[in-house]
Amino acid sequence: MTDTFSFKVHATDGTARTGAISTPRGEIRTPAFMPVGTVATVKGIYPEQVRATGADILLGNTYHLMLRPSAERVAKLGGLHKFMRWERPILTDSGGFQVMSLSGLRKITEKGVTFRSHVDGALHEMTPERSIEIQGLLGADIQMQLDECVSLPCEEAEAERAMRLSLRWAERSKKAFELQPKGRALYGIVQGGAVPRLRIESARELAAMDFPGYSIGGLAVGEPQEVMLDMIETVEPHLPKEKPRYLMGVGTPDDMLEAVARGIDMFDCVMPTRSGRHALAFTRFGRINLKNARHAEDSRPLDEESDCPALRDYSRAYLHHLVRCEEMLGAMLISWANLHYYQDLMRGIRGAIAEGRFEDFRRETKEGWARGDIPRLA
Amino acid sequence: MTDTFSFKVHATDGTARTGAISTPRGEIRTPAFMPVGTVATVKGIYPEQVRATGADILLGNTYHLMLRPSAERVAKLGGLHKFMRWERPILTDSGGFQVMSLSGLRKITEKGVTFRSHVDGALHEMTPERSIEIQGLLGADIQMQLDECVSLPCEEAEAERAMRLSLRWAERSKKAFELQPKGRALYGIVQGGAVPRLRIESARELAAMDFPGYSIGGLAVGEPQEVMLDMIETVEPHLPKEKPRYLMGVGTPDDMLEAVARGIDMFDCVMPTRSGRHALAFTRFGRINLKNARHAEDSRPLDEESDCPALRDYSRAYLHHLVRCEEMLGAMLISWANLHYYQDLMRGIRGAIAEGRFEDFRRETKEGWARGDIPRLA
Repeated sequence: MTDTFSFKVHATDGTARTGAISTPRGEIRTPAFMPVGTVATVKGIYPEQVRATGADILLGNTYHLMLRPSAERVAKLGGLHKFMRWERPILTDSGGFQVMSLSGLRKITEKGVTFRSHVDGALHEMTPERSIEIQGLLGADIQMQLDECVSLPCEEAEAERAMRLSLRWAERSKKAFELQPKGRALYGIVQGGAVPRLRIESARELAAMDFPGYSIGGLAVGEPQEVMLDMIETVEPHLPKEKPRYLMGVGTPDDMLEAVARGIDMFDCVMPTRSGRHALAFTRFGRINLKNARHAEDSRPLDEESDCPALRDYSRAYLHHLVRCEEMLGAMLISWANLHYYQDLMRGIRGAIAEGRFEDFRRETKEGWARGDIPRLA
Repeated sequence: MTDTFSFKVHATDGTARTGAISTPRGEIRTPAFMPVGTVATVKGIYPEQVRATGADILLGNTYHLMLRPSAERVAKLGGLHKFMRWERPILTDSGGFQVMSLSGLRKITEKGVTFRSHVDGALHEMTPERSIEIQGLLGADIQMQLDECVSLPCEEAEAERAMRLSLRWAERSKKAFELQPKGRALYGIVQGGAVPRLRIESARELAAMDFPGYSIGGLAVGEPQEVMLDMIETVEPHLPKEKPRYLMGVGTPDDMLEAVARGIDMFDCVMPTRSGRHALAFTRFGRINLKNARHAEDSRPLDEESDCPALRDYSRAYLHHLVRCEEMLGAMLISWANLHYYQDLMRGIRGAIAEGRFEDFRRETKEGWARGDIPRLA
């Protein structure tokens, strides 16, 4: 254990790296996938199970938590870790992204954003200072500056305006963060739409501010994967090598493999649990849609060699049946299986980088997905 | 282990009894509460957890399973136990009750019931023979005769007609059941509405047919608890003491205490899981409605002395928050807590009867409920 936040790269393989972030609440092995615990729960799974899949850190959504149950109430109850029974590190976003995507009647000024809650229509104000205050009340180990995230495609002038505003908010967030206890970290967020010069300017300016970690925001917002990967390649040389890089809101297993190849250390995404509630399983044989009638009499599990009960012990026929009947257990099992597979993939990635065989791992993993589902035995 | 079905009363205390049913798939300690696994899943909980609460046997619903995934498909996949990963005993109802309550366009004749599925409107026929065939294909350890269950209140002539029809169907069910493997049991079902002479006639006629167990049906269908308890008292002296008695679809913790006092050995009810999905917890302090705002900042668990994680480890504030956000984990935890409390109550009942202190146990348990929620510590 440590009382400070630090990051160490243990091995590199090309641009890919593996290492560990140390925090007072435990170590985060990188590359890391962070399950999303939106409103203080990873949907449909007990916290002990999330940990058992291999997750070192969870993500909590500031926007959701400030509305329900509120940061002040979480603080009164001892902080987010205690509230949701997750004693390991938690990262919170700034709330900015979801203010833009979920709330009504947004108004952005230099000072911050005013918006109406999607839950009850109440008016709220979010400033860089208030976002950091909320994240502090939640007790987040890794916090994000408030930023403005534009949707893609976007006019260059608009992307530039939002990026510059985000830089000014980065400064204010950093200052506000000084009030917080030692051992926590604040990340700056690279913006700039799909415009290389803006992305580079953003990365350089943030690097000059010397954050303990850097996020790449404003990607995975509907653009082609190629655009996303181009932007990562553009930004990466301008981020300090000794600091962790977090690609926000990404992604599919393939997105993560490709982003790791380009130097990314951290990911978060609702995909494993959201897909789990929609009958889509991610496996080493690719995606398996359990709604499909072809599974109705298939007695095989999703992956008989897995050590996750959800993948190993329940037949596809049973999962198909649960999905068809809209039973909670179907969503519970497929979400669990997906969270496990995501962590399995990260374990594989970390091991491969450590052993200098990341390229082989990437190729073999993709071959597995492309080969598809294992053939049904006669 | 045994290859036959048998029942042994180990101790009595007044009319209350405790004992065990032996089956090839394991022992069922009585009085027993059977969680309801409607469509091959106890809603919102993994099968291993159900077992860990202390359940020796589950109930499956013939009506639901015949529609989805169908008895033939379950049989093809190796039977209901394997399908839903529950290797211990399973009891199935006959399907009759849910045909009456859920399906459309029912028509009852001497031969059986024709009805339309509530899922897709398809026409089905259910006869005593078909019900037993389905329960056999599912592989149920304890099966129910097809009966006609009238709703209460009911005209005496109508209750008499349905009771007599149920007796004729009992004969046909018994004959159909002869085709099944040894070690399984078929129960006859006592009907007769709220009319003592009809209930007595039904019990006597069924006793003369010598079933391995007897169910009391047509109660807990909306009548006052007093009527239900009167009918149990009316019927009990006419049921063979050496056979298990199952009160179908019951009930609240209080219903079960009172029915055990009147000689009942087995219960099933959706209440623990249905209430769990509606934020209502059953505890030794009575019912706790977690929707109530008074729990919003209450850091205490539901029952800190419980050995069930759902009761012991999660704060009321957190459960309230999950319920308010309609999060799956709220339904999962409260259903789990309720199933655990129901089994805790049965453990307490069995122990008390064995030690000849059932009356004390009944009084103390009711005092606990009446005393209500433990006071909040300052």
